[in-house]
Amino acid sequence: MSDTVQETRGRILEAAAQVFAAKGYHDTKVDDIVSKSKTSKGAFYFYFPSKQDIFMALVDAFADLLENQLKTRLDAQASGIARMDAALRVCLDTFGQYRALAKIALVQATGLGEAFEEKRRAINERFSRVIRDNLDRAVADGSIPALNTEVAARAWIGALNEIVLSWVYTATPDPAESLPALRRLLLQSVGVSEIRIREFETQ
Amino acid sequence: MSDTVQETRGRILEAAAQVFAAKGYHDTKVDDIVSKSKTSKGAFYFYFPSKQDIFMALVDAFADLLENQLKTRLDAQASGIARMDAALRVCLDTFGQYRALAKIALVQATGLGEAFEEKRRAINERFSRVIRDNLDRAVADGSIPALNTEVAARAWIGALNEIVLSWVYTATPDPAESLPALRRLLLQSVGVSEIRIREFETQ
Repeated sequence: MSDTVQETRGRILEAAAQVFAAKGYHDTKVDDIVSKSKTSKGAFYFYFPSKQDIFMALVDAFADLLENQLKTRLDAQASGIARMDAALRVCLDTFGQYRALAKIALVQATGLGEAFEEKRRAINERFSRVIRDNLDRAVADGSIPALNTEVAARAWIGALNEIVLSWVYTATPDPAESLPALRRLLLQSVGVSEIRIREFETQ
Repeated sequence: MSDTVQETRGRILEAAAQVFAAKGYHDTKVDDIVSKSKTSKGAFYFYFPSKQDIFMALVDAFADLLENQLKTRLDAQASGIARMDAALRVCLDTFGQYRALAKIALVQATGLGEAFEEKRRAINERFSRVIRDNLDRAVADGSIPALNTEVAARAWIGALNEIVLSWVYTATPDPAESLPALRRLLLQSVGVSEIRIREFETQ
């Protein structure tokens, strides 16, 4: 039985993620992706006009994955502050699980210049919105004091990006150590009380 | 009397900053910089092999300026926490005063791809070091509780970058409002007490 349309596209994307991770963006050829995916050049170009397009599609797939994980996990939390903590865990876990993909998206993309920079900013905006909404809820339900949630959301996004980037580039700071430190730092930054932070830390 | 070597180089750099700010990186031609600086094409190419080189030199000049301002202002502060607060003020003031230059360095540089990305990371490392040293001092003199200062320094750099970038791109959030909010956020993040934050806020 032949693949459905979605299956073929998905197989090509999955192969592309593996090839990009192994060879890097610049040394990857469309032929490598085609042969890894066991599809055809025709199928590839049917879904993706170019190597840059499949790369951007991978970045979108990663952002979608992260957003879906966020939605699922956040809906299970009652208070605003528990939602924020869950959001941080999801971001850090997802980057941890998909380090190869994160590396492709964050490091190799820099060579793509403005086209990628626009996408990067659009994705930042999207997640900055998610963080801001959750901070607004936490303020509304009294878990944290009133604050400029737009500035806080952007600061969080910037901090998360920088920590993940430096980890991806240099393998330091060690995630096992840096992630709890970052979590405490971000929770403290918006005025979560020491007692609540300790509660989250022992969960 | 003719210019000294340093004066000529400086005049060309200053003219370049103005032309880049007015026309953007891509539309700027070496001839524009030469004519604005009232020097000669020979002088330009004596100091700078290409447009990209003078651009990178401008970015370095901005980083040097920021580092010098930091040194001067920090040496005047006694406690670790006062030094950290002064460092934040200096960063935000300097970006505010040289917004055109910051915009060139942060936005237009994205089109330069990997060459610029390497420089950006090197500058981030340099300032991350400055922040980390000051956080270490603040921990040592007891102004803040012990924490992972490497993670905190990177988080601060990331947060500062993101706020400045989004301001440079979209003119929001309004600096007058966002800078005090960011300052409070960063000081809270490393556990500076509410009393000390209020002291700094009224200075």
